[in-house]
Amino acid sequence: MPQRKHYLFVCVNRRPDGVPKGSCAARGAVEIHGALKAALAEHKLAKVEARACTASCLDVCWVGPTIAVEPDGFFYGRVTMADVPEIVQALRDGARVERLVLPPEDFDEATAHPGIPAPQG
Amino acid sequence: MPQRKHYLFVCVNRRPDGVPKGSCAARGAVEIHGALKAALAEHKLAKVEARACTASCLDVCWVGPTIAVEPDGFFYGRVTMADVPEIVQALRDGARVERLVLPPEDFDEATAHPGIPAPQG
Repeated sequence: MPQRKHYLFVCVNRRPDGVPKGSCAARGAVEIHGALKAALAEHKLAKVEARACTASCLDVCWVGPTIAVEPDGFFYGRVTMADVPEIVQALRDGARVERLVLPPEDFDEATAHPGIPAPQG
Repeated sequence: MPQRKHYLFVCVNRRPDGVPKGSCAARGAVEIHGALKAALAEHKLAKVEARACTASCLDVCWVGPTIAVEPDGFFYGRVTMADVPEIVQALRDGARVERLVLPPEDFDEATAHPGIPAPQG
């Protein structure tokens, strides 16, 4: 199979339950990666268009779950399972889900907009 | 910290010992990721210039260990520990290590140039 046009790197870093920072895995990132992979296969996008991979910490924990969309060079943040169909549709349309794209201020915890709360554990 | 200028996604997929295809982890990818991360920190590149992450299978197992360099959109393949200083120097120079960059034919196992043999296990 050729190099895919897009690679979606889903952070699945997991911190111990109860750590205030939380982690993408604690907010459902493993399931999001699975759903994304299944949706790409279902729409026959997996062999040429896009591949969903897991990744270690992308260092924007406060707005996780996060996905680095490459080589496009942008990050989705605060992703939920409900967003997966829209993310896949955007790939098909050559577009992106603008409401999920992290602006520069979200890359710094001090200036980030609110994230999804870490689950209590 | 800002979005880094580059993200290096090192495949660390591991297959059971003895599987003929081998895997990036069986060929030393975990150690390569560790060395890359340490070298980026040592050269003070980690906070702005580049972040080394691990990733799941990038689907070019036959030429592993592989690294997706993003958003540049190319892959390094057949990477060894000895290549890490050159990879970091290339980042500093705004260049790439051309001898490690995978050409299109390496993305298909049927047309790929020889890879690093899978270790016997």
